Amino acid sequence: MSRMKASAVREILKVAERPDVLSFAGGLPAPELFPVEAIAQAHAEVFAQEGRAALQYSTTEGYGPLREWIASHLGERGLHVAADQVLITNGSQQGIDLVAKVMLDPGDVVLVENPSYLAALQTFSGYEVSFSVVGSDDDGMRVDELERFVTAGRKPKLIYLVPNFQNPKGTTLSLERRHALVRFAQRHRILILEDNPYGELRFRGEHLPSLASLDTEGVVVNLGTFSKTLAPGLRIGWAVGPREIIRALTVVKQSTDLHTATVAQRATARLLSRFDYNAHLDQLRAVYGERCLAMIGSLERHMPAGTRWTQPDGGMFIWVELPRGMSADTLFPLALEKRVAFVPGSPFFASEPRTEFMRLNYSNRPPELLEEGMRRLGAVIASQQ
Amino acid sequence: MSRMKASAVREILKVAERPDVLSFAGGLPAPELFPVEAIAQAHAEVFAQEGRAALQYSTTEGYGPLREWIASHLGERGLHVAADQVLITNGSQQGIDLVAKVMLDPGDVVLVENPSYLAALQTFSGYEVSFSVVGSDDDGMRVDELERFVTAGRKPKLIYLVPNFQNPKGTTLSLERRHALVRFAQRHRILILEDNPYGELRFRGEHLPSLASLDTEGVVVNLGTFSKTLAPGLRIGWAVGPREIIRALTVVKQSTDLHTATVAQRATARLLSRFDYNAHLDQLRAVYGERCLAMIGSLERHMPAGTRWTQPDGGMFIWVELPRGMSADTLFPLALEKRVAFVPGSPFFASEPRTEFMRLNYSNRPPELLEEGMRRLGAVIASQQ
Repeated sequence: MSRMKASAVREILKVAERPDVLSFAGGLPAPELFPVEAIAQAHAEVFAQEGRAALQYSTTEGYGPLREWIASHLGERGLHVAADQVLITNGSQQGIDLVAKVMLDPGDVVLVENPSYLAALQTFSGYEVSFSVVGSDDDGMRVDELERFVTAGRKPKLIYLVPNFQNPKGTTLSLERRHALVRFAQRHRILILEDNPYGELRFRGEHLPSLASLDTEGVVVNLGTFSKTLAPGLRIGWAVGPREIIRALTVVKQSTDLHTATVAQRATARLLSRFDYNAHLDQLRAVYGERCLAMIGSLERHMPAGTRWTQPDGGMFIWVELPRGMSADTLFPLALEKRVAFVPGSPFFASEPRTEFMRLNYSNRPPELLEEGMRRLGAVIASQQ
Repeated sequence: MSRMKASAVREILKVAERPDVLSFAGGLPAPELFPVEAIAQAHAEVFAQEGRAALQYSTTEGYGPLREWIASHLGERGLHVAADQVLITNGSQQGIDLVAKVMLDPGDVVLVENPSYLAALQTFSGYEVSFSVVGSDDDGMRVDELERFVTAGRKPKLIYLVPNFQNPKGTTLSLERRHALVRFAQRHRILILEDNPYGELRFRGEHLPSLASLDTEGVVVNLGTFSKTLAPGLRIGWAVGPREIIRALTVVKQSTDLHTATVAQRATARLLSRFDYNAHLDQLRAVYGERCLAMIGSLERHMPAGTRWTQPDGGMFIWVELPRGMSADTLFPLALEKRVAFVPGSPFFASEPRTEFMRLNYSNRPPELLEEGMRRLGAVIASQQ
């Protein structure tokens, strides 16, 4: 079932990449904002000054100076950890997989938001778990409903969520719910996997503390990545958490792929040692904020009555609810005919798929193409009413 | 148990890296032979000419031109596959993990040589399999003994081996046994995982056909890597096999880490498009051959009577059997005192560990240090007789 979903979405993304299609399907950052020259320069220096070490095998834990930079950076964001609590991963997707591998046995229960990040659902499914699903609203996961999931024989082993600018909804877990969720996990000794790929991409509102920073009892593993802030093609992410869990993840990573690419780690560390990362983030936030508001403006202009959407404060996605009775699965091929694409929402549901949603990505297109895309999409939806 | 082994070996390698210790413990290629400038140049060109694409997300299958190069290169070695039968992995270790993830369920039986590549044993153990172990001699796995392993309820799901210059023994599976092994796997419909990291490093004797090239029924997955021929720090390996298996591995890789680093893949493809890879391999073979023979010469000069070792035709390792009654585990701390290190053989055994063996790596040291190291090691062994 999970594999079928995976294949279906792979097919969708493949079709959506047709050059004549204006696609909002992928989860792609804006390549024109990649700091290509700074990354190129960092690589050149690594090869010139430490080429042999950078091309040799290295430790599974990751490159020391990079782990230190990440620990220090997280500290600035209110999450105080030591460098030896940081494991470098091949993007944060690998963090999800390693946590699943260490923590989950067949038949275990994983509690997820519904809808939830598709590729995490696929990872968990691969370990033959079952899901408990909790709904969400504009303030993220319905933490107030969690208590009823702790029933005999169905107690979750893991709670997975994306608290900031969730994929696919774009919504953010409120501060009150963060406190409540951490208390809940502590009370029942359930591990929280806090997946935070988009947290740095807040373009309005106040930064909220991570779940890991609210936890004093070691029940949170926090995942981060440079994929949305520097470039995904480097494949550098990290997992941060209690030492004994990080140690277990490290042993499992060793037998999974030995270590993350040494060249990319050293180049990233070198880049960060002198690059103005915060100024770069400010630029990303400005551009993505502009694009998000542009997409919302275009949705307002072109969507027929009865269409609704979320109002993200950051990240890369808007979640659209179609007018009553309409199915995004049915709409997809019709939209393709009009050379516009999205991801239908159904595969993001861990339980019964719901067909009235679609996910739109705004980070990858300038405002004029967002406008043109929403014009096309609005016309397709209107034609089906 | 497997984790204990992993930790023990991690500790051994950590101690062995002490700068005052002459270590033959690691499985490290010679960094002075890394084509650093050519790799640096390829990266520089990638950033200059295709920087944004190289830093963006890419397909799980891997970069098309790199898959094509690998398919064509394998063809020159007698293994004829199409590019869509090649999956790019993060080193061949990831290939082992993906095959295990797709093929193995808890309780399944994996048939391995004894001793066998340690990190593969760890990977398989993580999937809660049990092992059947078959012995080996100077011609590799005792294929003539396989039939007795196909008993009711214990039929292996997978056969794992390193046919060329095995880790840890350095021995090579004979041509006759290759044919017999493939016939055996075909007869019983058992998948062979042919792990071939060292195959290009033959410095004497004739190239032998891969198991995959002898198979016409789709029972072999073949793993390769640039870690031993270009540089491990790039983390580029590949899995080659029947299309339906490669497709399943691809779906699983997607939920494991999305894809292998785009930058490293494109730089490697660019490098290979004009680099004289065969001339580079000739240089590696010449140097490693010289080092292997130098180590054997030093062993002959310095080891006490009763010590025996293998005679590799390629690869990176020699397997040493200590004089009767001696334990490599006991020897290890004594050797460290004399500032020389090796890996004790016991963790390489999937069944009862045997303590009278040690693995020595010769690729990472020039002849004069091999001589000094064997002099120190010989004295330690002699002192224990």
